[in-house]
Amino acid sequence: MSHNSFGHLFRFTTWGESHGSALGAVVDGCPPGLPLSEADIQPFLDARRPGTSRFTTQRREPDAVRILSGVFDGRTTGTPISLMIENVDQRSKDYSEVAKAYRPGHADYAYDAKYGFRDYRGGGRSSARETAARVAAGAVARLVIPEVAITAWVESIGGDAIDPAAFDVSEIGRNPFFCPDAAAAARWEALVDGARKAGSSLGAVVACRAEGVPAGWGAPLYAKLDAELASAAMSINAVKGVEIGDGFAAAALSGEANADPMRPGEGGPEFLANHAGGIAGGISTGQPVTLRVAFKPTSSILTPVETIGPDGQATTIATKGRHDPCVGIRGVPVVEAMVALVLADQKLRHRGQVG
Amino acid sequence: MSHNSFGHLFRFTTWGESHGSALGAVVDGCPPGLPLSEADIQPFLDARRPGTSRFTTQRREPDAVRILSGVFDGRTTGTPISLMIENVDQRSKDYSEVAKAYRPGHADYAYDAKYGFRDYRGGGRSSARETAARVAAGAVARLVIPEVAITAWVESIGGDAIDPAAFDVSEIGRNPFFCPDAAAAARWEALVDGARKAGSSLGAVVACRAEGVPAGWGAPLYAKLDAELASAAMSINAVKGVEIGDGFAAAALSGEANADPMRPGEGGPEFLANHAGGIAGGISTGQPVTLRVAFKPTSSILTPVETIGPDGQATTIATKGRHDPCVGIRGVPVVEAMVALVLADQKLRHRGQVG
Amino acid sequence: MSHNSFGHLFRFTTWGESHGSALGAVVDGCPPGLPLSEADIQPFLDARRPGTSRFTTQRREPDAVRILSGVFDGRTTGTPISLMIENVDQRSKDYSEVAKAYRPGHADYAYDAKYGFRDYRGGGRSSARETAARVAAGAVARLVIPEVAITAWVESIGGDAIDPAAFDVSEIGRNPFFCPDAAAAARWEALVDGARKAGSSLGAVVACRAEGVPAGWGAPLYAKLDAELASAAMSINAVKGVEIGDGFAAAALSGEANADPMRPGEGGPEFLANHAGGIAGGISTGQPVTLRVAFKPTSSILTPVETIGPDGQATTIATKGRHDPCVGIRGVPVVEAMVALVLADQKLRHRGQVG
Amino acid sequence: MSHNSFGHLFRFTTWGESHGSALGAVVDGCPPGLPLSEADIQPFLDARRPGTSRFTTQRREPDAVRILSGVFDGRTTGTPISLMIENVDQRSKDYSEVAKAYRPGHADYAYDAKYGFRDYRGGGRSSARETAARVAAGAVARLVIPEVAITAWVESIGGDAIDPAAFDVSEIGRNPFFCPDAAAAARWEALVDGARKAGSSLGAVVACRAEGVPAGWGAPLYAKLDAELASAAMSINAVKGVEIGDGFAAAALSGEANADPMRPGEGGPEFLANHAGGIAGGISTGQPVTLRVAFKPTSSILTPVETIGPDGQATTIATKGRHDPCVGIRGVPVVEAMVALVLADQKLRHRGQVG
Repeated sequence: MSHNSFGHLFRFTTWGESHGSALGAVVDGCPPGLPLSEADIQPFLDARRPGTSRFTTQRREPDAVRILSGVFDGRTTGTPISLMIENVDQRSKDYSEVAKAYRPGHADYAYDAKYGFRDYRGGGRSSARETAARVAAGAVARLVIPEVAITAWVESIGGDAIDPAAFDVSEIGRNPFFCPDAAAAARWEALVDGARKAGSSLGAVVACRAEGVPAGWGAPLYAKLDAELASAAMSINAVKGVEIGDGFAAAALSGEANADPMRPGEGGPEFLANHAGGIAGGISTGQPVTLRVAFKPTSSILTPVETIGPDGQATTIATKGRHDPCVGIRGVPVVEAMVALVLADQKLRHRGQVG
Repeated sequence: MSHNSFGHLFRFTTWGESHGSALGAVVDGCPPGLPLSEADIQPFLDARRPGTSRFTTQRREPDAVRILSGVFDGRTTGTPISLMIENVDQRSKDYSEVAKAYRPGHADYAYDAKYGFRDYRGGGRSSARETAARVAAGAVARLVIPEVAITAWVESIGGDAIDPAAFDVSEIGRNPFFCPDAAAAARWEALVDGARKAGSSLGAVVACRAEGVPAGWGAPLYAKLDAELASAAMSINAVKGVEIGDGFAAAALSGEANADPMRPGEGGPEFLANHAGGIAGGISTGQPVTLRVAFKPTSSILTPVETIGPDGQATTIATKGRHDPCVGIRGVPVVEAMVALVLADQKLRHRGQVG
Repeated sequence: MSHNSFGHLFRFTTWGESHGSALGAVVDGCPPGLPLSEADIQPFLDARRPGTSRFTTQRREPDAVRILSGVFDGRTTGTPISLMIENVDQRSKDYSEVAKAYRPGHADYAYDAKYGFRDYRGGGRSSARETAARVAAGAVARLVIPEVAITAWVESIGGDAIDPAAFDVSEIGRNPFFCPDAAAAARWEALVDGARKAGSSLGAVVACRAEGVPAGWGAPLYAKLDAELASAAMSINAVKGVEIGDGFAAAALSGEANADPMRPGEGGPEFLANHAGGIAGGISTGQPVTLRVAFKPTSSILTPVETIGPDGQATTIATKGRHDPCVGIRGVPVVEAMVALVLADQKLRHRGQVG
Repeated sequence: MSHNSFGHLFRFTTWGESHGSALGAVVDGCPPGLPLSEADIQPFLDARRPGTSRFTTQRREPDAVRILSGVFDGRTTGTPISLMIENVDQRSKDYSEVAKAYRPGHADYAYDAKYGFRDYRGGGRSSARETAARVAAGAVARLVIPEVAITAWVESIGGDAIDPAAFDVSEIGRNPFFCPDAAAAARWEALVDGARKAGSSLGAVVACRAEGVPAGWGAPLYAKLDAELASAAMSINAVKGVEIGDGFAAAALSGEANADPMRPGEGGPEFLANHAGGIAGGISTGQPVTLRVAFKPTSSILTPVETIGPDGQATTIATKGRHDPCVGIRGVPVVEAMVALVLADQKLRHRGQVG
């Protein structure tokens, strides 16, 4: 019921605005006895950090995390883990125009419609900056599910997709796009550069695969593993679509073409296909859990767009601040974090439910 | 945390198996004083009811709903509304084979992996029959949001899509496919007939539009209106994908092409486009809320598929029971119900949060 | 958030009014594989059943429970267990006067103030009849915690207390008062008879002890085992006080007098006292969990009391219906049920949290 | 389900240990537009602050609160309010002995039994220091319920009670005991001094009254206002009993003696008594909401007590650290805070449910 919390047995709450003094997360329900220090979290924040290439926002944030509670003698105690990240590079002056005009596609108008009021500096609470807190919490979640390996990547930018045949997981870390296809990464350099120079922006699709999820996590009916993953993904800024397994493509198939036949295998069935994305009836099957997430292009563009202001007057706005030309790129560590957070919670819930 | 409940202030819990004596829903948190009788619920159940055309399962169920509590002198009292639907046409013998072999794509294996045990009659709790309880609860939810009109339809079957230019809302009720395009409906007759006769099945995409949702419903960040809709849709049997507004199509656009410009209008802004599906930053904008939902083809097909049984032995299974050749068709009233249930809850939460 | 649900991993929802057609509970989160039939539940309902002696309400209800879902081949499946009890002996005419005047001390005025409306027949949803659904759910909870033995009894009626030195657990089932002291039971016969004949009513204190709770259940800080027990007990009709261990008596002690010293024992510490009622820091210590619950006298009395009616007019009311002269007596099985429900939930949560 | 969160629509989460670097609370769901600064919170922290008289622990903490998020231009925005209080005076060396022996009556053994591990410095998370975060959150809650005035006081210490006839609300702030009876305060000076010098401790009863609660807050059945107050009070360290209205005293009364008759009054009924503590059927009646809370004596005493250590060995412990000789005294601002937090949540929920 808390609007800024997610999860049940493993639960986190985030707080903080883009231009406040700090932001953070409280992770509640982490099992006791897990080794944890800032060094376990920082690498994930570094992967998401802005300002690391010309393809992301030029805001410079060290994103150094501090653990304020919940750890004693280097191990988690079972009590809440408070994580804090200070904001360093807030240039509030960049945003003075946003106070006077709603940026179409942004949350500006909707927040004012709901709350009668908003923190307009850098998008306030609706800024993608909030996702730093999720990534920090996600790093803790990973410790809870050591049996699971989560990998996400960008599958397409502005409609230009990778070649599945060229997929090379080791390539993902070698380019600024989290792209598993070296040729596509080269093309995207020009593509994103073009958008950036034009003050435009591009959408992207992020794919994610979690290997090692044992059969049996998830639950019917409103806590289906796919429902929780969909909720988690759709809670990320700029996300407008989620697919589990083949997703919309499955809607065009026949039952025969969509079948995932099974054979006896070692330690469980061997599956001959994975159209279902590793989830049947809302419960994991032991296959890799796969999902795809659609990020819209960020609405901050240099081209003036018709809009209105808080007083209802007609105006136009061209957004000049520091923005990601393709917010989906930095969405990769965020998707990974949210998947880790869902799975950690599901593991604990399964353990409680079934013993 | 309850796996069979959904919602917060307006909350429902469903119970019952495909072949048990009955199924039902308990609706908790319905505001007091609303006129309610069985007659307000029955038409929605009739729309979802099996056996009404040759394009759905031939199971014959009257799906007559009884209100057991929460209503006095014809009005809701604010206390839980217990709704019950008796199962009439359970032919458990049809399912004896399912006890001995996991149907690929069904929840059979996953349930056994989780619970070590399952009710194999007609899919038990994972049967689409459970959605009758949702539709009944959804009918109550509609009474809570009289300002909203919800309409869903089938947009494509097996990859054969309607012509958007031919969209006619009045056509939806005139054919057994909830199809707004008369020409497509005619084509689908042959298409679904073919699948049915061949013992095959087809996927489908269901689209939904909610008009009249005022600006301000929803909440950042993990209770975003899009996140709750995604969770609700993905909790429906056979659903594998959800899009809000343009969804995955937006991921291929530039920021300019995806913009939803605003002009001063009467009683709020006039929007010049609705790529965002009526939701920005997780909060409704006052535009129609639009979503698309992908249903996979039902996994019950006559073609034998390789599988294993509870003891791990290799076998094959061909599913001969009474099934929907295209489960997406009867998904239309279910999607409408889930959208109503999400919006009723959001309305009450908004009212509580903001006053 | 659901007002008619309780628990997290093991959760139940009750529905139904005193004079509706039926009432029931949906138990969600019960682990799979437990043997369960109506025969496991009925004895607990029989213990709470009205009309079994002249010391309880003369309403005659068989309170026969039906299991409508969640059980297959005699075992729980992990899916929701729907329990239904039909109302048989509703004499609504008895309550016509209640429509016209608020019974002081009853929920009549408060319900109208909240909902603008109420089901006045027999107290509607606020009737003690609702506790039948709790007792049914509690019987399922007991199956989840076979290691725990729960015993409750009446400790005092109208201020007349048992002699602790005369405590005999086997006496509890031998008299209509759940009284462990035969001499007190004899005194109470005259006491309650007197109140009954005079159309008066009496308060009572119910004590409860749960043996076998292992150390470690519960959680800091807002899910303390004592906090959950207090919430559970205070949710019972007519309850106005809860004590864990020595409760208010501890507030008059010094630290020395209140100490629970420990010595090495077999399989854990041996405690030399149990002032804390088996809970320290919100977590069970392995000692018996003990609590005391105060029931006020039922507000239904024959002596006319000043009151007002729905239109605000002055009037008096004398309640002539069939009522318990001492509602605390039948509270014994209800307290036991609530303690079982709390402990079942705590067991599953502990298992999930700590593994 | 979060063990360190409380509330539903108005919800807070606390974090931090007695000897960590800081502690804090995240308040989620606070309505937008309320004026809020540190100055609104600090006075309540000052009232609870340790080291202000010789009757409380000598730990010196400024307890200066910082608002890290959720406020813009001096007003709440509807987003999470992060509150942080730094720990200044942690002398961890005082607690080295606690690592080697469980203090009877403290949470030491129970935490180890649950988590296999604990932060033994100053009680870690189970320290009364955590209540500073509650008091800070409670100050925010008060802003949400300006119609309500909450006053708590100490009613008895070590069994020595105030004289109800001498009750003077203005006296409460004039002595270090929050005592409304000047004569009792004088007696308690000697009483608590004696306990302090002897290294002993004393229990206490705290009473609280909330005036201005309108009729209609609360809800049947498991969210009864009394159940939520009981849960809130019992979640406070050292609390072992809760009464609403007359509590246990009502259990000794007849229905006639316990009646709360009503007469027509201005703007609602005039009640002739308030045995029920302002709550009927779990819903407020418009009368003052009254409760009493029992605090046990702190278990930290100088007299050696038999105990065991983490390895199960026999030992004794005498607690020499800085402790409150009567923890109930500083419980007064904590009880007030918890009552404010419950009522703020109930107000928002009522608004959402009933509109």
